[in-house]
Amino acid sequence: MRTAAALIIGNEVLTGKVQEENVAPLARELFSLGVSLRRVVVCPDEIDVIVSDLNALRSGHDHVFTSGGVGPTHDDVTIPAVAAAFGRAVVRSAELEAQIRGYFHGRPVGEEHLRMAEIPEGAELLRTAEVPWPTVVIDNVYVLPGVPQAFRMKLVGLRERLRTDSPFVSEAVYTLSDEAGIAALLTRLAAEHPSVLIGSYVKWRDPEYKTKVTFDGRDPDAVKRAADALVAALPPAELVRRS
Amino acid sequence: MRTAAALIIGNEVLTGKVQEENVAPLARELFSLGVSLRRVVVCPDEIDVIVSDLNALRSGHDHVFTSGGVGPTHDDVTIPAVAAAFGRAVVRSAELEAQIRGYFHGRPVGEEHLRMAEIPEGAELLRTAEVPWPTVVIDNVYVLPGVPQAFRMKLVGLRERLRTDSPFVSEAVYTLSDEAGIAALLTRLAAEHPSVLIGSYVKWRDPEYKTKVTFDGRDPDAVKRAADALVAALPPAELVRRS
Repeated sequence: MRTAAALIIGNEVLTGKVQEENVAPLARELFSLGVSLRRVVVCPDEIDVIVSDLNALRSGHDHVFTSGGVGPTHDDVTIPAVAAAFGRAVVRSAELEAQIRGYFHGRPVGEEHLRMAEIPEGAELLRTAEVPWPTVVIDNVYVLPGVPQAFRMKLVGLRERLRTDSPFVSEAVYTLSDEAGIAALLTRLAAEHPSVLIGSYVKWRDPEYKTKVTFDGRDPDAVKRAADALVAALPPAELVRRS
Repeated sequence: MRTAAALIIGNEVLTGKVQEENVAPLARELFSLGVSLRRVVVCPDEIDVIVSDLNALRSGHDHVFTSGGVGPTHDDVTIPAVAAAFGRAVVRSAELEAQIRGYFHGRPVGEEHLRMAEIPEGAELLRTAEVPWPTVVIDNVYVLPGVPQAFRMKLVGLRERLRTDSPFVSEAVYTLSDEAGIAALLTRLAAEHPSVLIGSYVKWRDPEYKTKVTFDGRDPDAVKRAADALVAALPPAELVRRS
Protein backbone atom coordinates (compact mmCIF):
# COMPACT_ATOMS: atom_id res chain seq x y z
CA MET A 1 0.00 0.00 0.00
CA ARG A 2 1.30 3.41 -0.95
CA THR A 3 1.51 5.80 2.00
CA ALA A 4 1.88 9.55 2.25
CA ALA A 5 2.48 12.29 4.79
CA ALA A 6 2.20 16.07 4.70
CA LEU A 7 4.34 18.69 6.37
CA ILE A 8 2.52 22.01 6.71
CA ILE A 9 5.11 24.72 7.30
CA GLY A 10 3.10 27.48 8.82
CA ASN A 11 3.53 29.95 11.67
CA GLU A 12 0.28 31.47 10.40
CA VAL A 13 -1.57 28.21 11.13
CA LEU A 14 0.06 27.73 14.56
CA THR A 15 -0.83 31.27 15.63
CA GLY A 16 -4.42 30.97 14.38
CA LYS A 17 -4.17 33.69 11.75
CA VAL A 18 -5.52 31.46 9.02
CA GLN A 19 -7.58 28.33 8.72
CA GLU A 20 -5.39 25.67 7.13
CA GLU A 21 -6.87 24.82 3.72
CA ASN A 22 -4.45 22.48 1.96
CA VAL A 23 -4.79 19.24 3.92
CA ALA A 24 -8.42 18.60 2.89
CA PRO A 25 -7.85 18.75 -0.90
CA LEU A 26 -4.61 16.76 -0.55
CA ALA A 27 -6.38 14.12 1.54
CA ARG A 28 -9.30 13.85 -0.92
CA GLU A 29 -6.95 13.61 -3.90
CA LEU A 30 -4.77 10.92 -2.30
CA PHE A 31 -7.81 8.93 -1.16
CA SER A 32 -9.25 8.89 -4.67
CA LEU A 33 -5.85 7.84 -6.07
CA GLY A 34 -5.51 4.97 -3.59
CA VAL A 35 -2.67 6.51 -1.57
CA SER A 36 -3.07 6.30 2.21
CA LEU A 37 -2.40 9.66 3.91
CA ARG A 38 -1.10 8.47 7.27
CA ARG A 39 0.14 11.61 8.95
CA VAL A 40 0.08 15.39 8.85
CA VAL A 41 2.45 17.57 10.84
CA VAL A 42 2.14 21.34 11.20
CA CYS A 43 5.46 22.90 12.19
CA PRO A 44 6.83 26.44 12.53
CA ASP A 45 8.91 28.24 9.88
CA GLU A 46 12.17 27.09 11.48
CA ILE A 47 14.85 25.29 9.49
CA ASP A 48 16.00 22.88 12.20
CA VAL A 49 12.43 21.77 12.96
CA ILE A 50 11.57 21.33 9.27
CA VAL A 51 14.74 19.29 8.67
CA SER A 52 13.98 16.98 11.56
CA ASP A 53 10.31 16.53 10.63
CA LEU A 54 10.99 16.05 6.95
CA ASN A 55 13.60 13.41 7.60
CA ALA A 56 11.26 11.52 9.90
CA LEU A 57 8.36 11.71 7.44
CA ARG A 58 10.26 10.87 4.27
CA SER A 59 11.85 7.75 5.74
CA GLY A 60 8.47 6.39 6.83
CA HIS A 61 6.22 7.18 3.85
CA ASP A 62 6.24 6.66 0.10
CA HIS A 63 5.40 10.30 -0.62
CA VAL A 64 5.81 13.48 1.41
CA PHE A 65 4.19 16.79 0.49
CA THR A 66 5.33 20.06 2.00
CA SER A 67 3.10 23.11 1.99
CA GLY A 68 4.29 26.67 2.46
CA GLY A 69 7.45 28.66 2.98
CA VAL A 70 8.48 28.93 -0.66
CA GLY A 71 8.17 32.68 -1.28
CA PRO A 72 10.87 35.33 -1.61
CA THR A 73 10.91 36.71 1.96
CA HIS A 74 12.97 36.11 5.08
CA ASP A 75 10.32 33.80 6.58
CA ASP A 76 10.41 31.47 3.54
CA VAL A 77 12.85 28.78 4.60
CA THR A 78 11.46 25.62 3.05
CA ILE A 79 13.95 25.29 0.19
CA PRO A 80 17.06 25.60 2.39
CA ALA A 81 15.44 23.26 4.92
CA VAL A 82 14.63 20.61 2.30
CA ALA A 83 18.15 20.91 0.93
CA ALA A 84 19.61 20.51 4.42
CA ALA A 85 17.41 17.48 5.09
CA PHE A 86 18.94 15.80 2.04
CA GLY A 87 22.45 17.09 2.76
CA ARG A 88 22.40 19.07 -0.49
CA ALA A 89 23.45 22.62 -1.29
CA VAL A 90 20.97 25.27 -2.39
CA VAL A 91 21.70 26.24 -5.99
CA ARG A 92 20.16 28.69 -8.40
CA SER A 93 18.43 26.83 -11.23
CA ALA A 94 19.36 28.29 -14.61
CA GLU A 95 16.07 26.99 -15.98
CA LEU A 96 14.04 28.78 -13.31
CA GLU A 97 16.13 31.94 -13.57
CA ALA A 98 15.44 32.05 -17.31
CA GLN A 99 11.73 31.56 -16.66
CA ILE A 100 11.67 34.37 -14.08
CA ARG A 101 13.55 36.73 -16.39
CA GLY A 102 11.16 35.83 -19.21
CA TYR A 103 8.23 36.67 -16.96
CA PHE A 104 9.63 40.17 -16.48
CA HIS A 105 10.09 40.75 -20.23
CA GLY A 106 13.52 42.31 -19.90
CA ARG A 107 12.70 44.58 -16.97
CA PRO A 108 15.28 44.40 -14.17
CA VAL A 109 14.99 41.35 -11.93
CA GLY A 110 16.10 41.72 -8.31
CA GLU A 111 17.85 39.26 -6.05
CA GLU A 112 14.55 38.79 -4.20
CA HIS A 113 12.84 37.54 -7.33
CA LEU A 114 15.77 35.28 -8.09
CA ARG A 115 15.42 33.67 -4.67
CA MET A 116 12.46 31.95 -6.30
CA ALA A 117 14.92 30.20 -8.64
CA GLU A 118 16.71 28.48 -5.75
CA ILE A 119 16.34 24.72 -5.41
CA PRO A 120 18.12 21.90 -3.59
CA GLU A 121 20.98 20.71 -5.78
CA GLY A 122 19.86 17.86 -8.00
CA ALA A 123 16.14 18.41 -7.46
CA GLU A 124 13.79 17.63 -10.31
CA LEU A 125 11.67 20.40 -11.82
CA LEU A 126 8.45 18.63 -12.64
CA ARG A 127 6.48 20.41 -15.36
CA THR A 128 2.84 19.61 -15.94
CA ALA A 129 0.13 21.08 -18.15
CA GLU A 130 -1.78 22.63 -15.25
CA VAL A 131 0.71 25.27 -14.09
CA PRO A 132 3.39 27.30 -15.81
CA TRP A 133 5.64 27.01 -12.76
CA PRO A 134 7.30 23.61 -12.19
CA THR A 135 7.09 21.69 -8.94
CA VAL A 136 10.34 21.01 -7.07
CA VAL A 137 10.64 17.28 -6.39
CA ILE A 138 13.53 15.64 -4.63
CA ASP A 139 13.42 11.89 -4.11
CA ASN A 140 9.96 11.28 -2.58
CA VAL A 141 9.39 14.89 -1.42
CA TYR A 142 7.10 17.28 -3.32
CA VAL A 143 7.57 20.94 -2.42
CA LEU A 144 4.23 22.72 -2.80
CA PRO A 145 3.26 26.34 -2.19
CA GLY A 146 1.13 27.41 0.77
CA VAL A 147 -1.24 29.66 -1.19
CA PRO A 148 -4.31 27.40 -1.45
CA GLN A 149 -5.13 28.10 -5.11
CA ALA A 150 -1.53 27.41 -6.13
CA PHE A 151 -1.36 24.29 -3.95
CA ARG A 152 -4.46 22.82 -5.57
CA MET A 153 -3.33 23.63 -9.11
CA LYS A 154 -0.02 21.89 -8.56
CA LEU A 155 -1.70 18.95 -6.88
CA VAL A 156 -3.80 18.24 -9.96
CA GLY A 157 -0.59 18.14 -11.95
CA LEU A 158 0.78 15.36 -9.74
CA ARG A 159 -2.24 13.09 -10.21
CA GLU A 160 -0.84 10.80 -12.91
CA ARG A 161 2.43 10.41 -11.07
CA LEU A 162 0.73 9.40 -7.81
CA ARG A 163 -2.11 7.22 -9.08
CA THR A 164 -2.23 3.59 -7.91
CA ASP A 165 -4.28 0.79 -9.46
CA SER A 166 -6.47 0.39 -6.37
CA PRO A 167 -8.20 3.65 -5.50
CA PHE A 168 -10.18 3.95 -2.28
CA VAL A 169 -13.93 4.24 -2.42
CA SER A 170 -16.24 5.49 0.29
CA GLU A 171 -19.94 5.33 1.03
CA ALA A 172 -21.81 7.17 3.74
CA VAL A 173 -25.08 6.50 5.53
CA TYR A 174 -26.73 9.45 7.28
CA THR A 175 -28.92 8.53 10.23
CA LEU A 176 -31.07 9.99 12.96
CA SER A 177 -29.60 7.38 15.29
CA ASP A 178 -27.99 8.24 18.57
CA GLU A 179 -24.34 7.17 18.17
CA ALA A 180 -24.38 5.03 21.31
CA GLY A 181 -27.59 3.39 20.11
CA ILE A 182 -25.86 1.95 17.03
CA ALA A 183 -22.45 1.36 18.61
CA ALA A 184 -22.98 -2.39 19.11
CA LEU A 185 -24.31 -2.73 15.55
CA LEU A 186 -21.27 -0.92 14.15
CA THR A 187 -18.91 -3.11 16.17
CA ARG A 188 -20.59 -6.18 14.65
CA LEU A 189 -20.47 -4.75 11.11
CA ALA A 190 -16.78 -3.90 11.54
CA ALA A 191 -16.10 -7.52 12.50
CA GLU A 192 -18.21 -8.91 9.64
CA HIS A 193 -16.63 -6.64 6.99
CA PRO A 194 -12.94 -6.68 7.88
CA SER A 195 -11.79 -5.14 4.58
CA VAL A 196 -13.97 -2.07 5.21
CA LEU A 197 -13.02 0.74 7.58
CA ILE A 198 -16.16 1.94 9.35
CA GLY A 199 -16.29 5.37 10.98
CA SER A 200 -19.09 7.17 12.78
CA TYR A 201 -19.37 10.92 13.20
CA VAL A 202 -21.84 12.86 15.29
CA LYS A 203 -23.18 16.16 13.98
CA TRP A 204 -24.50 18.64 16.52
CA ARG A 205 -27.58 20.68 15.84
CA ASP A 206 -28.00 19.55 12.26
CA PRO A 207 -31.63 19.47 11.18
CA GLU A 208 -30.91 16.68 8.70
CA TYR A 209 -29.08 13.97 10.61
CA LYS A 210 -27.42 13.03 13.90
CA THR A 211 -24.82 10.38 13.08
CA LYS A 212 -23.04 9.81 9.78
CA VAL A 213 -21.50 6.38 9.25
CA THR A 214 -18.76 6.02 6.64
CA PHE A 215 -17.48 2.89 4.88
CA ASP A 216 -14.04 3.05 3.25
CA GLY A 217 -12.19 0.38 1.31
CA ARG A 218 -10.55 -0.61 -1.94
CA ASP A 219 -13.21 -3.14 -2.97
CA PRO A 220 -16.34 -1.26 -4.08
CA ASP A 221 -18.51 -4.36 -3.66
CA ALA A 222 -17.33 -4.96 -0.11
CA VAL A 223 -17.90 -1.30 0.75
CA LYS A 224 -21.40 -1.44 -0.70
CA ARG A 225 -22.20 -4.68 1.14
CA ALA A 226 -21.17 -3.13 4.48
CA ALA A 227 -23.29 -0.02 3.87
CA ASP A 228 -26.20 -2.22 2.73
CA ALA A 229 -25.91 -4.20 5.96
CA LEU A 230 -26.23 -1.03 8.05
CA VAL A 231 -29.22 0.17 6.07
CA ALA A 232 -30.88 -3.25 6.47
CA ALA A 233 -30.28 -3.28 10.22
CA LEU A 234 -31.32 0.29 10.99
CA PRO A 235 -34.87 1.05 12.09
CA PRO A 236 -36.28 2.55 8.85
CA ALA A 237 -37.30 5.75 10.62
CA GLU A 238 -33.64 6.41 11.53
CA LEU A 239 -32.35 6.22 7.94
CA VAL A 240 -32.01 9.66 6.33
CA ARG A 241 -30.09 8.93 3.13
CA ARG A 242 -26.96 7.33 1.77
CA SER A 243 -24.34 8.66 -0.59
CA MET B 1 7.75 30.36 27.56
CA ARG B 2 4.79 28.02 27.77
CA THR B 3 4.49 25.68 24.81
CA ALA B 4 1.69 23.51 23.50
CA ALA B 5 1.00 20.83 20.91
CA ALA B 6 -2.17 19.30 19.50
CA LEU B 7 -2.87 15.74 18.44
CA ILE B 8 -5.79 15.50 16.04
CA ILE B 9 -7.04 11.93 16.04
CA GLY B 10 -8.92 11.71 12.82
CA ASN B 11 -9.29 9.20 10.01
CA GLU B 12 -11.96 11.55 8.66
CA VAL B 13 -9.36 14.32 8.27
CA LEU B 14 -6.74 12.02 6.70
CA THR B 15 -9.24 10.69 4.16
CA GLY B 16 -10.51 14.16 3.27
CA LYS B 17 -14.08 13.60 4.46
CA VAL B 18 -14.09 16.71 6.60
CA GLN B 19 -12.21 19.96 6.80
CA GLU B 20 -10.40 20.01 10.15
CA GLU B 21 -11.89 22.82 12.26
CA ASN B 22 -10.40 22.60 15.74
CA VAL B 23 -6.81 23.72 15.20
CA ALA B 24 -7.71 27.30 14.26
CA PRO B 25 -9.75 28.10 17.40
CA LEU B 26 -7.17 26.32 19.59
CA ALA B 27 -4.35 28.26 17.96
CA ARG B 28 -6.14 31.61 18.36
CA GLU B 29 -7.00 30.88 21.98
CA LEU B 30 -3.44 29.84 22.90
CA PHE B 31 -1.95 32.83 21.08
CA SER B 32 -4.15 35.25 23.00
CA LEU B 33 -3.24 33.51 26.26
CA GLY B 34 0.49 33.70 25.56
CA VAL B 35 1.01 29.98 25.03
CA SER B 36 3.11 29.07 21.99
CA LEU B 37 1.49 26.33 19.89
CA ARG B 38 4.57 24.67 18.43
CA ARG B 39 3.25 21.59 16.71
CA VAL B 40 0.13 19.86 15.42
CA VAL B 41 0.00 16.21 14.41
CA VAL B 42 -2.92 14.56 12.64
CA CYS B 43 -2.85 10.78 13.13
CA PRO B 44 -5.21 7.89 12.37
CA ASP B 45 -7.59 6.28 14.89
CA GLU B 46 -5.03 3.63 15.84
CA ILE B 47 -4.01 3.03 19.44
CA ASP B 48 -0.33 2.29 18.83
CA VAL B 49 0.13 5.44 16.72
CA ILE B 50 -1.72 7.63 19.23
CA VAL B 51 0.36 6.26 22.12
CA SER B 52 3.61 6.94 20.32
CA ASP B 53 2.60 10.43 19.19
CA LEU B 54 1.15 11.42 22.53
CA ASN B 55 4.27 10.34 24.41
CA ALA B 56 6.48 12.31 22.03
CA LEU B 57 4.30 15.43 22.28
CA ARG B 58 3.72 15.41 26.04
CA SER B 59 7.40 15.09 26.86
CA GLY B 60 8.29 18.08 24.68
CA HIS B 61 5.50 20.57 25.46
CA ASP B 62 3.90 22.12 28.53
CA HIS B 63 0.37 21.33 27.34
CA VAL B 64 -1.00 18.78 24.87
CA PHE B 65 -4.55 18.84 23.53
CA THR B 66 -6.11 15.83 21.85
CA SER B 67 -9.10 16.19 19.57
CA GLY B 68 -11.43 13.38 18.59
CA GLY B 69 -12.01 9.71 19.22
CA VAL B 70 -13.95 10.04 22.46
CA GLY B 71 -17.38 8.74 21.46
CA PRO B 72 -19.06 5.41 22.23
CA THR B 73 -18.23 3.48 19.03
CA HIS B 74 -15.57 0.99 17.98
CA ASP B 75 -13.53 3.69 16.21
CA ASP B 76 -13.26 5.80 19.40
CA VAL B 77 -9.93 4.72 20.85
CA THR B 78 -8.56 7.89 22.41
CA ILE B 79 -9.25 7.04 26.06
CA PRO B 80 -7.57 3.60 25.95
CA ALA B 81 -4.70 5.12 23.96
CA VAL B 82 -4.17 7.97 26.46
CA ALA B 83 -4.32 5.45 29.30
CA ALA B 84 -1.75 3.24 27.56
CA ALA B 85 0.52 6.23 26.93
CA PHE B 86 0.60 6.86 30.68
CA GLY B 87 0.77 3.16 31.58
CA ARG B 88 -2.59 3.41 33.32
CA ALA B 89 -5.64 1.16 33.26
CA VAL B 90 -8.96 2.28 31.82
CA VAL B 91 -11.51 2.53 34.62
CA ARG B 92 -15.15 3.46 34.76
CA SER B 93 -15.59 6.73 36.65
CA ALA B 94 -18.38 6.48 39.21
CA GLU B 95 -18.84 10.23 38.95
CA LEU B 96 -19.34 10.10 35.18
CA GLU B 97 -21.51 7.00 35.38
CA ALA B 98 -23.82 8.81 37.83
CA GLN B 99 -23.93 11.82 35.52
CA ILE B 100 -24.84 9.63 32.51
CA ARG B 101 -27.53 7.80 34.47
CA GLY B 102 -28.89 11.15 35.64
CA TYR B 103 -29.04 12.34 32.04
CA PHE B 104 -31.30 9.37 31.19
CA HIS B 105 -33.66 10.05 34.12
CA GLY B 106 -33.94 6.43 35.17
CA ARG B 107 -34.37 4.99 31.68
CA PRO B 108 -32.11 2.00 31.00
CA VAL B 109 -28.51 2.90 30.19
CA GLY B 110 -26.59 0.54 27.93
CA GLU B 111 -22.97 -0.50 28.00
CA GLU B 112 -22.37 1.73 24.96
CA HIS B 113 -23.47 4.81 26.86
CA LEU B 114 -21.35 3.78 29.83
CA ARG B 115 -18.28 3.62 27.59
CA MET B 116 -18.48 7.40 27.85
CA ALA B 117 -17.75 7.05 31.59
CA GLU B 118 -14.38 5.41 30.95
CA ILE B 119 -11.25 7.36 31.82
CA PRO B 120 -7.57 6.62 32.39
CA GLU B 121 -7.10 5.64 36.03
CA GLY B 122 -6.28 8.70 38.13
CA ALA B 123 -7.31 11.23 35.49
CA GLU B 124 -8.76 14.51 36.68
CA LEU B 125 -12.33 15.43 35.71
CA LEU B 126 -12.11 19.17 35.21
CA ARG B 127 -15.47 20.87 35.58
CA THR B 128 -16.02 24.40 34.36
CA ALA B 129 -19.03 26.67 34.08
CA GLU B 130 -19.18 26.46 30.27
CA VAL B 131 -20.11 22.80 29.79
CA PRO B 132 -22.03 20.27 31.87
CA TRP B 133 -19.61 17.52 30.84
CA PRO B 134 -16.16 17.58 32.50
CA THR B 135 -12.89 17.51 30.59
CA VAL B 136 -10.57 14.55 31.15
CA VAL B 137 -7.13 15.84 32.11
CA ILE B 138 -4.16 13.66 32.89
CA ASP B 139 -0.89 15.34 33.79
CA ASN B 140 -0.40 17.88 30.95
CA VAL B 141 -2.82 16.23 28.48
CA TYR B 142 -6.31 17.60 27.86
CA VAL B 143 -8.67 15.18 26.13
CA LEU B 144 -11.11 17.16 23.98
CA PRO B 145 -13.92 16.02 21.70
CA GLY B 146 -13.69 16.19 17.92
CA VAL B 147 -17.13 17.72 17.34
CA PRO B 148 -16.18 21.36 16.69
CA GLN B 149 -18.92 22.99 18.78
CA ALA B 150 -18.06 20.77 21.76
CA PHE B 151 -14.32 21.34 21.28
CA ARG B 152 -14.74 25.10 21.35
CA MET B 153 -17.03 25.07 24.39
CA LYS B 154 -14.56 23.02 26.38
CA LEU B 155 -11.68 25.18 25.22
CA VAL B 156 -13.27 28.29 26.68
CA GLY B 157 -13.49 26.44 29.98
CA LEU B 158 -9.72 25.89 30.01
CA ARG B 159 -8.87 29.56 29.53
CA GLU B 160 -8.14 30.46 33.15
CA ARG B 161 -6.05 27.37 33.66
CA LEU B 162 -3.88 28.07 30.60
CA ARG B 163 -3.49 31.84 30.80
CA THR B 164 0.03 33.24 31.12
CA ASP B 165 0.97 36.76 32.19
CA SER B 166 2.44 37.63 28.79
CA PRO B 167 -0.12 37.18 26.03
CA PHE B 168 0.91 37.50 22.41
CA VAL B 169 -0.29 40.45 20.38
CA SER B 170 -0.38 40.76 16.62
CA GLU B 171 -0.73 43.55 14.12
CA ALA B 172 -1.20 43.24 10.38
CA VAL B 173 -0.45 45.57 7.49
CA TYR B 174 -2.28 44.88 4.22
CA THR B 175 -0.45 46.06 1.12
CA LEU B 176 -0.66 46.14 -2.65
CA SER B 177 3.06 45.37 -2.70
CA ASP B 178 4.51 42.50 -4.66
CA GLU B 179 6.01 40.21 -1.98
CA ALA B 180 9.43 40.15 -3.66
CA GLY B 181 9.34 43.94 -3.89
CA ILE B 182 9.25 44.31 -0.10
CA ALA B 183 11.39 41.28 0.75
CA ALA B 184 14.55 43.30 1.40
CA LEU B 185 12.59 45.79 3.52
CA LEU B 186 11.09 42.98 5.60
CA THR B 187 14.52 41.40 6.11
CA ARG B 188 15.78 44.74 7.44
CA LEU B 189 12.73 45.21 9.71
CA ALA B 190 13.14 41.66 11.08
CA ALA B 191 16.74 42.50 11.98
CA GLU B 192 15.82 45.88 13.52
CA HIS B 193 12.93 44.45 15.58
CA PRO B 194 14.32 41.18 16.91
CA SER B 195 11.57 40.69 19.50
CA VAL B 196 8.91 40.77 16.77
CA LEU B 197 8.17 37.83 14.47
CA ILE B 198 7.40 39.17 11.00
CA GLY B 199 5.49 37.07 8.48
CA SER B 200 4.35 37.85 4.95
CA TYR B 201 1.46 36.16 3.17
CA VAL B 202 0.46 36.51 -0.45
CA LYS B 203 -3.23 36.50 -1.33
CA TRP B 204 -4.16 35.49 -4.86
CA ARG B 205 -6.91 37.26 -6.74
CA ASP B 206 -8.02 39.39 -3.84
CA PRO B 207 -9.39 42.74 -4.95
CA GLU B 208 -8.32 44.37 -1.67
CA TYR B 209 -4.67 43.49 -1.18
CA LYS B 210 -1.75 41.44 -2.47
CA THR B 211 0.56 40.87 0.48
CA LYS B 212 -0.34 40.86 4.16
CA VAL B 213 2.50 41.43 6.63
CA THR B 214 2.03 40.30 10.22
CA PHE B 215 3.91 41.36 13.36
CA ASP B 216 3.71 39.10 16.42
CA GLY B 217 5.26 39.52 19.84
CA ARG B 218 4.69 39.83 23.55
CA ASP B 219 5.55 43.54 23.79
CA PRO B 220 2.68 45.58 22.28
CA ASP B 221 4.90 48.65 21.89
CA ALA B 222 7.57 46.71 20.02
CA VAL B 223 4.95 45.14 17.76
CA LYS B 224 3.45 48.54 17.04
CA ARG B 225 6.87 50.07 16.34
CA ALA B 226 7.67 47.35 13.81
CA ALA B 227 4.33 47.79 12.03
CA ASP B 228 4.81 51.58 12.11
CA ALA B 229 8.21 51.14 10.50
CA LEU B 230 6.71 49.17 7.61
CA VAL B 231 3.96 51.72 7.09
CA ALA B 232 6.53 54.54 7.11
CA ALA B 233 8.75 52.75 4.59
CA LEU B 234 6.04 51.62 2.15
CA PRO B 235 5.18 53.74 -0.87
CA PRO B 236 1.89 55.34 0.31
CA ALA B 237 0.00 54.00 -2.72
CA GLU B 238 0.85 50.43 -1.68
CA LEU B 239 -0.65 50.71 1.83
CA VAL B 240 -4.21 49.40 2.03
CA ARG B 241 -4.88 49.29 5.77
CA ARG B 242 -3.61 48.00 9.06
CA SER B 243 -5.34 46.10 11.80
